Amino acid sequence: MIIKLTKGTTTDQVNHIVKIFENLGMEVKDASGKEYGVLGIIGDTSKLSVRDIEAIEGVEKVTRIQEPFKKANKKMQEESTIVDVNGIKIGEGTFTIMSGPCSVESRDQILEVARSVKKSGAQILRGGAYKPRTSPYAFQGMELEGLELLKEARKETGMPIVTEIMSVDLVERFAREVDIIQVGARNMQNFDLLKALGKIDKPILLKRGLSATIEEWLMSAEYIMAGGNEKVILCERGIRTYEKFTRNTLDLSAVLAVKKLSHLPVIVDPSHATGKRWMVKKLAMAAAAVGADGLMIEVHNDPENALCDGAQSLRPEQFEDLVIDVKKILEVVNKKM
Amino acid sequence: MIIKLTKGTTTDQVNHIVKIFENLGMEVKDASGKEYGVLGIIGDTSKLSVRDIEAIEGVEKVTRIQEPFKKANKKMQEESTIVDVNGIKIGEGTFTIMSGPCSVESRDQILEVARSVKKSGAQILRGGAYKPRTSPYAFQGMELEGLELLKEARKETGMPIVTEIMSVDLVERFAREVDIIQVGARNMQNFDLLKALGKIDKPILLKRGLSATIEEWLMSAEYIMAGGNEKVILCERGIRTYEKFTRNTLDLSAVLAVKKLSHLPVIVDPSHATGKRWMVKKLAMAAAAVGADGLMIEVHNDPENALCDGAQSLRPEQFEDLVIDVKKILEVVNKKM
Amino acid sequence: MIIKLTKGTTTDQVNHIVKIFENLGMEVKDASGKEYGVLGIIGDTSKLSVRDIEAIEGVEKVTRIQEPFKKANKKMQEESTIVDVNGIKIGEGTFTIMSGPCSVESRDQILEVARSVKKSGAQILRGGAYKPRTSPYAFQGMELEGLELLKEARKETGMPIVTEIMSVDLVERFAREVDIIQVGARNMQNFDLLKALGKIDKPILLKRGLSATIEEWLMSAEYIMAGGNEKVILCERGIRTYEKFTRNTLDLSAVLAVKKLSHLPVIVDPSHATGKRWMVKKLAMAAAAVGADGLMIEVHNDPENALCDGAQSLRPEQFEDLVIDVKKILEVVNKKM
Amino acid sequence: MIIKLTKGTTTDQVNHIVKIFENLGMEVKDASGKEYGVLGIIGDTSKLSVRDIEAIEGVEKVTRIQEPFKKANKKMQEESTIVDVNGIKIGEGTFTIMSGPCSVESRDQILEVARSVKKSGAQILRGGAYKPRTSPYAFQGMELEGLELLKEARKETGMPIVTEIMSVDLVERFAREVDIIQVGARNMQNFDLLKALGKIDKPILLKRGLSATIEEWLMSAEYIMAGGNEKVILCERGIRTYEKFTRNTLDLSAVLAVKKLSHLPVIVDPSHATGKRWMVKKLAMAAAAVGADGLMIEVHNDPENALCDGAQSLRPEQFEDLVIDVKKILEVVNKKM
Repeated sequence: MIIKLTKGTTTDQVNHIVKIFENLGMEVKDASGKEYGVLGIIGDTSKLSVRDIEAIEGVEKVTRIQEPFKKANKKMQEESTIVDVNGIKIGEGTFTIMSGPCSVESRDQILEVARSVKKSGAQILRGGAYKPRTSPYAFQGMELEGLELLKEARKETGMPIVTEIMSVDLVERFAREVDIIQVGARNMQNFDLLKALGKIDKPILLKRGLSATIEEWLMSAEYIMAGGNEKVILCERGIRTYEKFTRNTLDLSAVLAVKKLSHLPVIVDPSHATGKRWMVKKLAMAAAAVGADGLMIEVHNDPENALCDGAQSLRPEQFEDLVIDVKKILEVVNKKM
Repeated sequence: MIIKLTKGTTTDQVNHIVKIFENLGMEVKDASGKEYGVLGIIGDTSKLSVRDIEAIEGVEKVTRIQEPFKKANKKMQEESTIVDVNGIKIGEGTFTIMSGPCSVESRDQILEVARSVKKSGAQILRGGAYKPRTSPYAFQGMELEGLELLKEARKETGMPIVTEIMSVDLVERFAREVDIIQVGARNMQNFDLLKALGKIDKPILLKRGLSATIEEWLMSAEYIMAGGNEKVILCERGIRTYEKFTRNTLDLSAVLAVKKLSHLPVIVDPSHATGKRWMVKKLAMAAAAVGADGLMIEVHNDPENALCDGAQSLRPEQFEDLVIDVKKILEVVNKKM
Repeated sequence: MIIKLTKGTTTDQVNHIVKIFENLGMEVKDASGKEYGVLGIIGDTSKLSVRDIEAIEGVEKVTRIQEPFKKANKKMQEESTIVDVNGIKIGEGTFTIMSGPCSVESRDQILEVARSVKKSGAQILRGGAYKPRTSPYAFQGMELEGLELLKEARKETGMPIVTEIMSVDLVERFAREVDIIQVGARNMQNFDLLKALGKIDKPILLKRGLSATIEEWLMSAEYIMAGGNEKVILCERGIRTYEKFTRNTLDLSAVLAVKKLSHLPVIVDPSHATGKRWMVKKLAMAAAAVGADGLMIEVHNDPENALCDGAQSLRPEQFEDLVIDVKKILEVVNKKM
Repeated sequence: MIIKLTKGTTTDQVNHIVKIFENLGMEVKDASGKEYGVLGIIGDTSKLSVRDIEAIEGVEKVTRIQEPFKKANKKMQEESTIVDVNGIKIGEGTFTIMSGPCSVESRDQILEVARSVKKSGAQILRGGAYKPRTSPYAFQGMELEGLELLKEARKETGMPIVTEIMSVDLVERFAREVDIIQVGARNMQNFDLLKALGKIDKPILLKRGLSATIEEWLMSAEYIMAGGNEKVILCERGIRTYEKFTRNTLDLSAVLAVKKLSHLPVIVDPSHATGKRWMVKKLAMAAAAVGADGLMIEVHNDPENALCDGAQSLRPEQFEDLVIDVKKILEVVNKKM
């Protein structure tokens, strides 16, 4: 950690600052120039908050050298994490497609979509039972009934299921009944929920928050891992920018950044990123080309009458076409589904 | 709601679209031009999602005419909402200052700060018992013990208390023991929590999300109000932008926007917005000038040794100075504390 | 164009608004609902500014139905524009790589890099003679001397050259001596320059502005085309967002958006987008996968001692490797270089 | 400047890096910790680009300690710069209002508005002769004829005039005929123009770019000052964010930031920031409260029929009302117009 001192800081103030860090068991090195006083703080600074240190009289600016995440950090674990979901390996070297409708709407719908995406090559079935909707007046999901239908679809197709959790109350049930528990973008910093998920032994799919930095996203993974659950899969789903042509701006460089900083798997969701059906396939191919470990794709058998996000859902035949073209890209990057 | 049709849409497709809306009990008007087919949808469209309609074949773009919030909408209630907190009126025409430390750290600290801010003119005591921290390794608050200390400070000073809730489990206790329940920026779209808070009878302070639009913010208020609890106070606390000199960018025009769109009270938190102590007073004065209904200001008796966000906390004498200058602005805008 | 009227607008005001548009030769249709007055304006609204109409008493909000760009609009020209640069076709169906150093630094440097990138497969040579630098104290380019060296490299290798223009004074010379004239991100809305470039007959490479919307970008293309020069090539180079891990956020969905809205070619510059050498190849592959018409890639024979942007410049052998892998992606998408 | 080394950097590489900086006349200090190699670079680093240094093998991240601007830096000049415009002092301690129409439209219009704003208290007359418009089909200003009308209005009212320049060709004429030359947001990094303005002796009003950081804004001021012209007035006019209720997001904390970092005067333009007439007065009052040195306000005698930006223009009587209320705020902050 590097501390730039305010111009005109007295020797007494500097000594006071040095003492604060020495009392915390850190070593302090002087790296001052002609114009500015600069201190280098050496030791485990992950517990220190940049903002708290900037509160100290005489401190102008603090720069972190060490990343604040530990268990999620590639520097702590060279080897890539592979998350095993009922025998399906998710992580470096493989490619996994999770697919299904935005929300479970009926027995017929989820079974039909499940069979169809399985046939096309999806390995994991997604489907929302509890839906985070901007409006309290919009359809909120089939809830427990939806979860039962997902289980039925799993039984019939053999595909593991992933679904979003919105409430700490349901952690125990989801841990028992679901194969991957999804944390949505809006809950990425619901620390109460993250802590609860850290205590169970179940893969977690952690979506990037609407405007989360890569560091904040990895810190949310760290919350789960710090509790003991190291089975975290990250999911890039677009970030909020000034551009409004697309719903969000898909940040494919984030895949590369995560691969550099962390050993965790990272997949891409082009459906939510763009909100536009006609953009999904090409961006899925781009995600495969950039090195993502998989995709999450929304598919609906009747998108016009979908109760949620039909505009971004592919029809089954479009999904089949997507898988065919994504596989061609995977050959180029030497990966297999 | 206005629907722009894709070029080349057939008459059959248009008729199909018209039928969809007529089946939903809406009326459809043709507003087509020479180049584009355009339909106007008339009726209560608040339950419809723009994205779902964009899924329909032949629909290119949907524009909402009616705001999606109802109970929070000024068009539904001309009169400004005044939230009464133990006799303190919060809303149009008055000005309320909530002040106290970022987090409760000890009995001495909270009592000393409470006495001091009361003397300077604050009407409501703030203090965090449960703290949302980016890092799992950072201080997470004194939790229940902190809540007890806040209650003690209330007993001694007579000031109502406001503190942040992070968990649905605590709603019942907070409803009983706290005077205003704060929803933090990171939980603005924790819909599970919002629904639970809609069922109690207690004022809610709803902070704007890190990158929430004004409409999304009002929709989160709507979640609480739809459940029956109409005592919502909004709080602007800065938004995330590309500019990194300040922690967030304080959006004072949002105060004017909220006043135009809604009847709910709105206060401003310049401490979290900037993260810089030396900016707080001037921005507090600006917030008073622009027409906010109050302020939330962090004060700490020993910011250098604060366990949380010391850099943005005023010392008690700085807070006293702030109140004096804010009062001068209030005279200009004809308001009283 | 759709106009939402302010609640409480009188019949006189509405009549006044109707007359304004009728005087402009437009037709006005009533599309009002129960709660809101809504007017549909029919005719060529491309000259009207949304903000000017919102100035009219009684107008609450204006929504454009027709895109404001005409010559750049796909609706006006179905067929994709192919820009011919000395026999090299840039546009739909082909793939063109422009490569070379950020700035021309010496005769040896530009000749060595030119030979090397040509051998690896680049078709067009890039190199900055005039450099837009944030600091007035940084190297500003070799200027005319740099231009002469570029011409020499063209003579030796036969590659057409593309270089950035910063001044209207140089338009005539560049039109004579350069093969593609580049407009940098910072000058995307330098309308004075765009108008001058509209009057010449020379391909223009128009980079997207730092925070330009796709519509603004196409409007800048429209400025050039309105003057008579329709040889515009667009270049996505990352946009400014809150995320700071990368220099900018590469927006690959913008390639798809441009292809939908316009008939103009669009290429991608992953070097400037990320500012990080190790990200360039993978994002170049993703750009090819998503359907871009080409790439602009920085290559330097000695990036450590580059006078500009070495951090994002590939070494020649890295560029060779990039071309090999991009070609594999091009096979998948049925394109040839 | 602080350099974090990549993990695993060899001693040879470190020695190589040290030599690079020593050859540039800098001193290098070791500030390494247990986990990371860290070097402190001491000397005048203003000519070095962070990105260039990040190109060096073994360098992971570079952090600037010294600000890259010099002449604009408060550390170089404690005393606030006061720009004298025909006897009107602009800067710390005073408050100046520049007012007039978005664009000059006719002799009657500019004379009428000029007389009116003067009577209400404006000291400087603004008016656009050359207009930067997003669309090539929109009104581009009266150009030279507009300039002549501005001069006539100056002659009649005695008010100095400020108008926007878009072309280097006009610098000489503007230097002769105009009192303050405005650089618009879109040209803030038109370095060619900035350099030309650095060579004349005339006050420059430099608007903040659409998405410029405070540092980039000051670097653009530095461009002008480096050429010898130190009469720079900064103007905050809103930044581009994801929020679309307002045209831009007015960043009043930027006023405080500029005052901390620089000695230059800074004024605020709430008209362009919001694009909404009804927001202008309250934000003008907030700008005065926060400590701005003045305002730029658009006024039009007939905003409904304005050829440009009528939606944000005040009517003369609204401007008069604004000045009255702003003056009350100025009394609180001990300033005089």
